[in-house]
Amino acid sequence: MPKDKPAKDKSKLETPAAAKAAKAKAGASTAPAPRPNPVSESARASRAYSEACALLREAATLTSVGALVSWDQETYMPRKGAAARAEQSALIATLSHERRTSKRLGELLQQCESDRAVQSDEAARANVREMRRDYEKATKLPADLVAELAKTGSEAQEVWKQARSQSDFGMFLPMLTKMIDLTTMKAKCLHSGLPGSEVYDALLDEYEPGAQAVVIESVFTPLRKELSGLIASVQDKVGSGKKKKPLVDTSCLQQQVDPALQHEFGQLVLRHMGFDMDACRLDTTTHPFCSGLAPGDTRLTTRYRDEKFTDALYGTMHEGGHGLYEQGLPKDVPGLFGTPLADSISLGIHESQSRLWENSVGRSKHFWKWALPIIKKRWGKAFKKFDVEDFTRATNTIAPSLIRVEADEGTYNLHVMIRFEIERGLFSGNIKPKDLPSVWNAKYKEQLGVDVPDDRRGCLQDVHWAFGLFGYFPTYTLGNLYAAQLWEKIQTDLPDTNKNIAKGEMLELREWLRVHVHQHGRRYSASELCERVTGKPLDSAPLLRHLRGKAKMVYGVE
Amino acid sequence: MPKDKPAKDKSKLETPAAAKAAKAKAGASTAPAPRPNPVSESARASRAYSEACALLREAATLTSVGALVSWDQETYMPRKGAAARAEQSALIATLSHERRTSKRLGELLQQCESDRAVQSDEAARANVREMRRDYEKATKLPADLVAELAKTGSEAQEVWKQARSQSDFGMFLPMLTKMIDLTTMKAKCLHSGLPGSEVYDALLDEYEPGAQAVVIESVFTPLRKELSGLIASVQDKVGSGKKKKPLVDTSCLQQQVDPALQHEFGQLVLRHMGFDMDACRLDTTTHPFCSGLAPGDTRLTTRYRDEKFTDALYGTMHEGGHGLYEQGLPKDVPGLFGTPLADSISLGIHESQSRLWENSVGRSKHFWKWALPIIKKRWGKAFKKFDVEDFTRATNTIAPSLIRVEADEGTYNLHVMIRFEIERGLFSGNIKPKDLPSVWNAKYKEQLGVDVPDDRRGCLQDVHWAFGLFGYFPTYTLGNLYAAQLWEKIQTDLPDTNKNIAKGEMLELREWLRVHVHQHGRRYSASELCERVTGKPLDSAPLLRHLRGKAKMVYGVE
Repeated sequence: MPKDKPAKDKSKLETPAAAKAAKAKAGASTAPAPRPNPVSESARASRAYSEACALLREAATLTSVGALVSWDQETYMPRKGAAARAEQSALIATLSHERRTSKRLGELLQQCESDRAVQSDEAARANVREMRRDYEKATKLPADLVAELAKTGSEAQEVWKQARSQSDFGMFLPMLTKMIDLTTMKAKCLHSGLPGSEVYDALLDEYEPGAQAVVIESVFTPLRKELSGLIASVQDKVGSGKKKKPLVDTSCLQQQVDPALQHEFGQLVLRHMGFDMDACRLDTTTHPFCSGLAPGDTRLTTRYRDEKFTDALYGTMHEGGHGLYEQGLPKDVPGLFGTPLADSISLGIHESQSRLWENSVGRSKHFWKWALPIIKKRWGKAFKKFDVEDFTRATNTIAPSLIRVEADEGTYNLHVMIRFEIERGLFSGNIKPKDLPSVWNAKYKEQLGVDVPDDRRGCLQDVHWAFGLFGYFPTYTLGNLYAAQLWEKIQTDLPDTNKNIAKGEMLELREWLRVHVHQHGRRYSASELCERVTGKPLDSAPLLRHLRGKAKMVYGVE
Repeated sequence: MPKDKPAKDKSKLETPAAAKAAKAKAGASTAPAPRPNPVSESARASRAYSEACALLREAATLTSVGALVSWDQETYMPRKGAAARAEQSALIATLSHERRTSKRLGELLQQCESDRAVQSDEAARANVREMRRDYEKATKLPADLVAELAKTGSEAQEVWKQARSQSDFGMFLPMLTKMIDLTTMKAKCLHSGLPGSEVYDALLDEYEPGAQAVVIESVFTPLRKELSGLIASVQDKVGSGKKKKPLVDTSCLQQQVDPALQHEFGQLVLRHMGFDMDACRLDTTTHPFCSGLAPGDTRLTTRYRDEKFTDALYGTMHEGGHGLYEQGLPKDVPGLFGTPLADSISLGIHESQSRLWENSVGRSKHFWKWALPIIKKRWGKAFKKFDVEDFTRATNTIAPSLIRVEADEGTYNLHVMIRFEIERGLFSGNIKPKDLPSVWNAKYKEQLGVDVPDDRRGCLQDVHWAFGLFGYFPTYTLGNLYAAQLWEKIQTDLPDTNKNIAKGEMLELREWLRVHVHQHGRRYSASELCERVTGKPLDSAPLLRHLRGKAKMVYGVE
């Protein structure tokens, strides 16, 4: 469409007929163009390779059924279906695991590793390399340890719930200690053959393959230091206690909006992000999530609060970013579904996709330039008095707080880095589980300047450790780092990105992400992909530039 | 609650707080009382018996996952998920089939059959008898025939859709012929060992175990004759063409009702039927159905028409009747889920449960006595001018028509019996597939007095035959027959039933059905159960009395 007609394009989106046309247009451009098969025909002709792929496809089909079973449990299952549901989930997981750990798969992989047609094809070789990686991990753990971890995790979660509600760390401590012991055993099993020297690296590797604590720390160190300084500057400006000056008016976010209208707007935003709406759902759950359930079937959830529509909006854009990654993986290329080449690289890269859409796009003034006129037209007079600057400032405030999931973009990474330091200490033995509350509270005081009043709002706030998810937290900040680094590269490659966002045109951006990130699946590791796409290893500078820019815009601090 | 306070009870249901209390009360009375295990401890201790039960439980868990996969496909799956969904369904069906046909199960059944502890317990013996029956059926059919039937059925369905829309029987004929040939092969495989002499009996046996065409015909013959006479009398009274007299004013059914209000009322009715609302869902689909998805998880669907609320109401009561059967099966008794004792007997008995609630309860004046005041209060002034008699008459009209699924309670059985006659002819060779339209049209003229204008509204109207569902239709009328026979027995056993329905109190009725029908699972055959409960073999007289009573009430004909 010619660039000199932005106004017309915008108004078009606000009438039903035009919305339908835009949908049809979006549909047309999201229709799957036949994607080239990255694996050569000769490699695909290998009997061992194709049989391994078929076996993994069956395992993945079972996993996809398991994903539906979980999705339904979160969305529509009646209360009394829970017991039977647990039995269904467990059986499907067992059947999938049996396939992934079968002796036959081991034999096939061995054959692939000495098959010339497979080894001379870079994509097939990468696929087999990752299949081997999965196979080793899946077969390394003794079955009784896996069962013990699952059982303890489910018990610990119940104890954690009660301990948190009563803010009683002592109640949780025995389970936490047991979970750390079991997870240490797991890490020791998985650690052999990994490059890193710390046992904790084996846990990081579960979520961010190839990650090492020492490398992550080298990126986190400058980030922590600079971020603490930046936040202190903002705090100085805002003041505290009685001297607090309300520098940012956030009343534009506190208008009542009917959830049905929020839902409709969320779907419009997803469509403009280039999300294929015929291959997805958007439902409501207590905890928003994205499930790349099956090829052609990606499901997002969000939750609506009448009095703060940006919760659901950014929830939807966040999950939508995850969903675009799922839709962009080459699951529809013949032979790839179920194999690593059609799977996501790491939680960090997955999170980079959600953060990029939520923070770099959704919290930009360019986004509000497009969104605000639509909101004003659709949601009526309560929004008439606000302008783009109001929304841009209100959605980019920075203020230290106690709860990670409620934290703003700026302070969020400090919450994450504190958890990373603590996890590392727990698994090196430098921190004893019983000292967790005092260590936690000291770090919050030191790095965020806040006093933790109780463990409920302190070290008992997250469910992750009860589940045994140690090594998971750092991927949140890795996601922010990758997102910022990709975003700077996008600004260079697509200089009109911001202008296009202001017109609601985001297909070019989605296409860039698809070509540079999504389509590769696990062909490259996260750090290889980062260097390949941005030309540089992971670096804290882009995220710091991004956050400094926002602090300057909102608070005028440098 | 004391019987002298019906008004108070009714009004209670109309305030939110009272509705909540009523729900709690209903919940309390539907809470599963610990049910006795019908299988003795010594039989359960048999190693072969318990291993067979465990194997079947795993198969049933897979089937329950398959049921969720199907339910989701009908309700919430995005369009582009269809291809992956077909793969999921096929895999789950295969895995379940493998278990049901495993050599191990055959060995275990053989052991059970000579195990004294099992054989000396009547319930365990019945369970093993039915397991054997399933096993023989599942292992008798060659795998390639099963695959060919599935493939042809799915192709034939597409051809049928097109042929119906173009009213072109010639287009469907080759597929129909192929489907009949394949189904004949299937019937011949299944026929050995069955008592009946006709090959068609093996098809009936698929849906109504033990049924024989000659026995069914002996019940259908008087029904057909008397019903045709009754309908002719009504037609005489009503007249036809220009002489048609509008004897029944149905305008009370043509009031606009918001689907959300219909949905709310449907849920209230289900609650009063004694449906456990914490163990179910009610959603919307094009074709309503009930899925006894898993223990504690029964899902109903219905569809709403703004201008005829009784479509959804009776759809909900019908599926609710099926659902009460599913909730009443002893799936929660330890060791029974997945075994025949926790499974429904036959489609005829299943249908009897839905028809009883829909027709004997829902279309009675007693039901309207309870429902109408609620409707008037909730749905406003459009309903003010109508009384109980208006609704009772309007929901019990009798008029011959072309389409089975739109037929009234009286003429419906003639539609079914015509299909039964034709199916029997097709499999005995007395009717050639190519002659189907002329045979069909002649029977409709003879038995219903209507001229079939085209095949779309004639022999192409139902999807069943395209799927290969021959022998399925008769179960609809068997359901009506069982329902009427049970209903007469209920009137004797629970003389206050009608009075209670008029007060919205239906728990006693549900309990009667649970005790006399639901809890037995497949312990008795359908005909055994009928005799056991009503003291008589299946008979056409109760259904005829039921329909004559309605014709007299609405049209004054004897």
